[in-house]
Amino acid sequence: MKTTICAPVTGSGCAAVMLVRLSGPQAGTILSHLLGENRTFEPRKQTLCTLYDNGEVLDRALVTYFQAPHSFTGEDVVEFALHGSPYIQGRLLELLCRYGAVPARRGEFSYRAFVNGKMDLVQAQGLCDLIASGNASAHRLALRSLDGQLSQKITAVKTTLSELLAQIEVRLDDVDEEMEPLTPDFVRAQLAAPLAHIRALTDTFSVGRLIKDGLKVAIIGVPNNGKSSLLNALVGFNRAIVSAASGTTRDTIEETLEINGQKIILTDTAGIRDHALDPAEEEGIFRSRKAMEQADAILFLLDASREITAQERALWEEVSRQQKRILIISNKADKADSIYPLAQGMENYAHFSISCKTGEGIEKLKNALTAFTRQVPADGLMISNLRHYQALLLAQTELESAVIRQEAGGEIVAEHLRAALSHLRELIGEVTPDDILGIIFSKFCMGK
Amino acid sequence: MKTTICAPVTGSGCAAVMLVRLSGPQAGTILSHLLGENRTFEPRKQTLCTLYDNGEVLDRALVTYFQAPHSFTGEDVVEFALHGSPYIQGRLLELLCRYGAVPARRGEFSYRAFVNGKMDLVQAQGLCDLIASGNASAHRLALRSLDGQLSQKITAVKTTLSELLAQIEVRLDDVDEEMEPLTPDFVRAQLAAPLAHIRALTDTFSVGRLIKDGLKVAIIGVPNNGKSSLLNALVGFNRAIVSAASGTTRDTIEETLEINGQKIILTDTAGIRDHALDPAEEEGIFRSRKAMEQADAILFLLDASREITAQERALWEEVSRQQKRILIISNKADKADSIYPLAQGMENYAHFSISCKTGEGIEKLKNALTAFTRQVPADGLMISNLRHYQALLLAQTELESAVIRQEAGGEIVAEHLRAALSHLRELIGEVTPDDILGIIFSKFCMGK
Repeated sequence: MKTTICAPVTGSGCAAVMLVRLSGPQAGTILSHLLGENRTFEPRKQTLCTLYDNGEVLDRALVTYFQAPHSFTGEDVVEFALHGSPYIQGRLLELLCRYGAVPARRGEFSYRAFVNGKMDLVQAQGLCDLIASGNASAHRLALRSLDGQLSQKITAVKTTLSELLAQIEVRLDDVDEEMEPLTPDFVRAQLAAPLAHIRALTDTFSVGRLIKDGLKVAIIGVPNNGKSSLLNALVGFNRAIVSAASGTTRDTIEETLEINGQKIILTDTAGIRDHALDPAEEEGIFRSRKAMEQADAILFLLDASREITAQERALWEEVSRQQKRILIISNKADKADSIYPLAQGMENYAHFSISCKTGEGIEKLKNALTAFTRQVPADGLMISNLRHYQALLLAQTELESAVIRQEAGGEIVAEHLRAALSHLRELIGEVTPDDILGIIFSKFCMGK
Repeated sequence: MKTTICAPVTGSGCAAVMLVRLSGPQAGTILSHLLGENRTFEPRKQTLCTLYDNGEVLDRALVTYFQAPHSFTGEDVVEFALHGSPYIQGRLLELLCRYGAVPARRGEFSYRAFVNGKMDLVQAQGLCDLIASGNASAHRLALRSLDGQLSQKITAVKTTLSELLAQIEVRLDDVDEEMEPLTPDFVRAQLAAPLAHIRALTDTFSVGRLIKDGLKVAIIGVPNNGKSSLLNALVGFNRAIVSAASGTTRDTIEETLEINGQKIILTDTAGIRDHALDPAEEEGIFRSRKAMEQADAILFLLDASREITAQERALWEEVSRQQKRILIISNKADKADSIYPLAQGMENYAHFSISCKTGEGIEKLKNALTAFTRQVPADGLMISNLRHYQALLLAQTELESAVIRQEAGGEIVAEHLRAALSHLRELIGEVTPDDILGIIFSKFCMGK
């Protein structure tokens, strides 16, 4: 028989109310034990009840009963809104276990919701992302995933592919060749829409990932052109020490900020030059290069008050080889008395003239930074989860192979279609192996 | 018009669910703004709703509407069970305030419940204590206060006194002396029961306070008789460093433990002797004496394997002068080959023979420690709050004066009765000045 599980579903710490959830076939029976009587509850109605532990009052709590399948998990669920005492909560959980419940594992309520068909894996992941979302963009993304829009799109693709596969398979079984064969053009045409949908989704991953996890931006340049001043200007307070002396910043300084509802992880780095003065600076420069490699975008900082140096040209060569999103920034615009030419290749990138001192150009630069994540498709559907991306990419590759290998015959095409369908089914959770499910749900927080 | 207030009512930190409460006359209207429509809610029924911020989905939440006066505060209340994201909670609170709510101050929901007659001050204090209670005894005490039993007792006393006062006052107004005067015996008899009830309550404070705040126990003795070993034996793990060398413990070590559902705050101290070896030991001995003064109970530790020394006799004089709960403990019972006599006066206290090495006698000692707080009256009603104690003590003094000053005439007795009633009214919150109410409720946690 299925177990009945229990766990706190609200955070710890001093609070007025604490919620405990009980889910499973025994939920109603266990509740009767706590009340000392069999009582009929109107589903979903909060009822003030006295909870007893061995005849002694434990708490007066608001109790809500959700009848299966109309609950979060799809099972019978009882929720207790207790007075916010960790002591009472602890005693209640003990008591629930004494009457037969077991403590829920991380994500176990969601897992049961998944098993009972209340949501698929993509929605479950959306739920997990929603709770973790810390800004407007990530929140919007997670909600679209949770409310099933993404799942619907994938399911629609799956249906089209299944129908095509059925048409191919029925002809493979048709040994007497009574049916008219499918022409390569027909199959190609049938595959076009699913492939386009999947490609549209995989294309969103590079931006979706940035929306969910944040855009990593490294400020790169030679020493003493104001990298720390730029960090301070962007975060809005004096985070990094700034001095007129060259090479003030030694270690990288990371700061997370939100611009236009987008998470930006900004890294200020030590100025890069050929000859470090000491081992500490050498280590700092090593870390600057590492930050550049790990960044999603680079702010290449120049000094507008002087010509570009040979050192800077060499560093620019290095930066432009990185194949990243790059913005060229000329700082100290307030001191610039003439316009110095940019280095070769820089004209291919957006260029900003700013002054950290006067604040000139900073707002424009901020907007440009968030423009990187503003490429949202018209329907707003994006993927941000590596597992989803990988599954879709595998399905996409199979479909591309199916298109290319048309001439090799129905069996080969069917093979690729079956593989693509299997990746899509795993993505939604229809045929996901238990160990993978275990990993996915174990990342949920307690009580979810 | 009254404001509508909002606040989170569950703890922060990663969690599946977060609750936000909205209370006041605008609660329903503000909810309509969030839903984008006027919707009728069945009171107390949890309903899945989509909450909108400016046309954009904020969350799918379980919403419960409590109609005044059938809510915690006695006002219209809306509770939102959100997905557990601090980001969503923050956005919702912002949104509620944009539509006219204001953030609740600490204890403001309880304050409104008090103002609307949903609970009196004694119950409100019980609620605060209940949330803070960390063990079975304190929890039981707070529940009795919260459920109104204590208030009922005080109200009954108030009623008796008011009736008596009315009888006296009507005779004071009776200038023609048409009514039969009240005899001193009658008045004394009428005062007897209220006075007994109040005395019974004030008598419980010394124990009630210990149940709520914990019993402070200091282990006192000369150096090297096993004080740290006793601490370790009582807490059940090696908390304090123990060595064969005399004077190992320098500073006091405090450990909180729970025995039989009672909170015990145990302090291990440096051994006290006349001639400290160095300034550090001298400071340690100073702190030992301080711990002894601040303790509710003292464990005076002896060494059962040798005779009591002159040093110990002198220390015992000091300890017994403290007028505290004292237990005499002879440690190292496993090494004792004969029974050495106790010092004079020790026979008046409970004496325990123990061995920290073998564990002999430790359980018995633990039970004796919690016996100090087991003096609970038959009805279980106790006070543990200093404000309650002071108010009851003032009322008690007034009633005692009334009894003594019988012969001084009706006006004087009436004066004392009025003063006693005023203290009782202030206790329950009928006439409590606003600044005192402010102090009481500001000690509540957020959202309560």
